[in-house]
Amino acid sequence: MSQWKITEKTIHKADLFEVKEQTITGKNKTKKYQIVQRRPTVLVFPLTSSNEIYLLSQYRTLFDKIILEAVAGHVDPGENPLKAAKRELKEEAGISARQWEELLRVESSASVVRSNMHLFLAKGLEEGESNLGGEEEDEEIVVIKMSLSEAINKIVNREIVDGPTIIGLLFLDKLRREKKL
Amino acid sequence: MSQWKITEKTIHKADLFEVKEQTITGKNKTKKYQIVQRRPTVLVFPLTSSNEIYLLSQYRTLFDKIILEAVAGHVDPGENPLKAAKRELKEEAGISARQWEELLRVESSASVVRSNMHLFLAKGLEEGESNLGGEEEDEEIVVIKMSLSEAINKIVNREIVDGPTIIGLLFLDKLRREKKL
Repeated sequence: MSQWKITEKTIHKADLFEVKEQTITGKNKTKKYQIVQRRPTVLVFPLTSSNEIYLLSQYRTLFDKIILEAVAGHVDPGENPLKAAKRELKEEAGISARQWEELLRVESSASVVRSNMHLFLAKGLEEGESNLGGEEEDEEIVVIKMSLSEAINKIVNREIVDGPTIIGLLFLDKLRREKKL
Repeated sequence: MSQWKITEKTIHKADLFEVKEQTITGKNKTKKYQIVQRRPTVLVFPLTSSNEIYLLSQYRTLFDKIILEAVAGHVDPGENPLKAAKRELKEEAGISARQWEELLRVESSASVVRSNMHLFLAKGLEEGESNLGGEEEDEEIVVIKMSLSEAINKIVNREIVDGPTIIGLLFLDKLRREKKL
């Protein structure tokens, strides 16, 4: 498909990402770019039979504030995305689900950052206890249930700003309007 | 809002991002995280009076393939997002627009990567010549016009995978259904 030959080497390693240098070689020229490779992530949208959704309110050091976002986490090495989604839903929200569907696979960006995300719909919910004791991030996670409509309103008024969370909610809203939920 | 004191220092610089080390200090402990700081970006959704949208088909070295995505680019230092959006629409698609509206401000992730995106709707379009001679990325950019419905279908069948592009298209679809476009 491409006239370019691409090689990559890791030039910086962090716990949750690597910086790689891409060398792009074409007929007459060579270019170098630095990119970020993240580990794959999953997002889970647990929906009740009355179209209520569970979200998390969580302090994030990245923004030094509390963010309203979907249940999410990294896929562990050797783990498949569905298993990671089930694990995160149980750990973060204390919820098990009988029905699972992968809604979308999304890249967080078309350039610079390579970060593959799997978005799951979870139905047939069973509430339990979450496994978090404030260990995971640096403050407690609060599980919040609201109607899908209310969540959509929070996108419009910019209370929800996390891109992957917005994608899942808007996609569910579309399915609901089409009576496909 | 937080019991944590956060300091940041840059430990790696690339053209389009920096790696920063966050030091999080609480009452009894100190933690260090590495995060990625990108430059702010803009995305533009140019919509015709008959609800057609212009997208770009563009080879991306990040995936070594052709991606269907919205007009997008970085905000230059000292530039405001609206000016960047107008510049990118002209440069990449050769289009000028009389009406501009900021649809959403979005973060690409709740953790690890800090990347602020401004999504703009552009209407009252005037087509011209794009300024690109294949210089910007490594292959030519093709401007593609399609109905908003067709673009939404391409999200469902996973032809469109770029997250920020998906957000803008789903949000426009929502506005259209509500007759707010």
